[in-house]
Amino acid sequence: MRQLQLSSQQIAVPGILGGMGPLAHIEFEQQLIQKNLERGSSTDQAHPVWILVNASNIPDRTKSLTGDCSDCVPWLLHYGRLLERCGVDFMIVTCNTSHAFYDRVQPSLNVPWIHLMAQTVDFIRVTYPQVRRVGVLATDGTLRAELYNRSLIQAGLMPIVPMLGSEVQQQIMQSIYHPDWGIKHTGILISEQAIRSLQISIGWLQQQGAELIIAGCTELSVALARMQAISLPWVDPLEVAASLTMDLAFGRRSLQSIWAA
Amino acid sequence: MRQLQLSSQQIAVPGILGGMGPLAHIEFEQQLIQKNLERGSSTDQAHPVWILVNASNIPDRTKSLTGDCSDCVPWLLHYGRLLERCGVDFMIVTCNTSHAFYDRVQPSLNVPWIHLMAQTVDFIRVTYPQVRRVGVLATDGTLRAELYNRSLIQAGLMPIVPMLGSEVQQQIMQSIYHPDWGIKHTGILISEQAIRSLQISIGWLQQQGAELIIAGCTELSVALARMQAISLPWVDPLEVAASLTMDLAFGRRSLQSIWAA
Repeated sequence: MRQLQLSSQQIAVPGILGGMGPLAHIEFEQQLIQKNLERGSSTDQAHPVWILVNASNIPDRTKSLTGDCSDCVPWLLHYGRLLERCGVDFMIVTCNTSHAFYDRVQPSLNVPWIHLMAQTVDFIRVTYPQVRRVGVLATDGTLRAELYNRSLIQAGLMPIVPMLGSEVQQQIMQSIYHPDWGIKHTGILISEQAIRSLQISIGWLQQQGAELIIAGCTELSVALARMQAISLPWVDPLEVAASLTMDLAFGRRSLQSIWAA
Repeated sequence: MRQLQLSSQQIAVPGILGGMGPLAHIEFEQQLIQKNLERGSSTDQAHPVWILVNASNIPDRTKSLTGDCSDCVPWLLHYGRLLERCGVDFMIVTCNTSHAFYDRVQPSLNVPWIHLMAQTVDFIRVTYPQVRRVGVLATDGTLRAELYNRSLIQAGLMPIVPMLGSEVQQQIMQSIYHPDWGIKHTGILISEQAIRSLQISIGWLQQQGAELIIAGCTELSVALARMQAISLPWVDPLEVAASLTMDLAFGRRSLQSIWAA
């Protein structure tokens, strides 16, 4: 990888594990470019080199957690090591639910994996210091593994989360997975039904006292970015990771800081 | 790469060399997903695995051809071999001008590189059998290397191309490269000036008798897809390559067919 020169500013190569779902890493790459353009880039060479695997064949993360399909750990390790062999210096997995396997994967990798939840909660603490109650839109898998819950509570914030199996949570799951109108099926042409389901779910979180929403599933990052009139401010973990990725690539933050997270 | 199973339908792994310019491979990946959704996919696993390098540090292709920066061949070989080591079965480079180096790179690779011009002209012959005169919007580098010219003439079609250095060609170059309003700088928020320049250029090609336009630079694929009221039908080589990539990944066309091209 490193035989040929990186651009003068780049000091670390990002590795992206995408394909979970199909659009998430594309949205993420678009954010990387956009963040860099906003910082004044105007040539191809001003953008960082990165390596990406569209690892679409990794089993469904939620089903894997409920035992309805095989374990994701060997797959995440396999692709993580492939990225390492390509010479990446850190890894981003553009799938929230996959972080349920983080503790079993990270110790076997030589490069740090950006922890989406820890970084998102850090961002919320700094950017919205007055906020206490944070609503989470996420898959059953992410809720079951209490991914955002743990990071929020650790930071002294109160997670507001629908019960597993509740009507609200079922609506969130349908907006992602419904075979006709779910986001995994429609792609960026988000359906009316998905939008309605998400608006109802956000309304419910607001009624429970949420002051802010986390789009805790990459399909929802894609959908909320295209929705009008969301009744609460919302944070996109993919965008948080995009800013951090640029900072790491160009040495504005150290890799040490994400190992520690 | 192949220790873990590909989805039951996938038989070949695409390797994408992107970053030239920054948005081209993102547009391309979006087209891959969209084509596959149109074919009825509704799960993550129904999409093919692919590997991508954002090879943004490759020197500017047009400048390399005019001797104004270093040779692109060692870079294309380096990244092509990196993709090979990752286990890809064929390669797409989402940059028209880079095909000026094709004849010096392909013989040293073990996997076939999809030739954008040959495939685009094939597509035009099949889809628009009545068309004879084809306008080309492209960089100076692509024109200088006569990339579309050669493929069109070989297929018995007449290329309509602005002269290098002409006012029209300068407008096309500015729409891509202008440091304030060129597409490489604005990203998908295509500027009014870029749109106007492209409309004037397309008008000129039409006056010269063009019946169809090739968006022969990936920045122009991005721009034309977002423009209203284009006065001629146009073909997007990236979209042609996206269809072909899906056909190759799922075995609907053989790798042999692109080696031969």
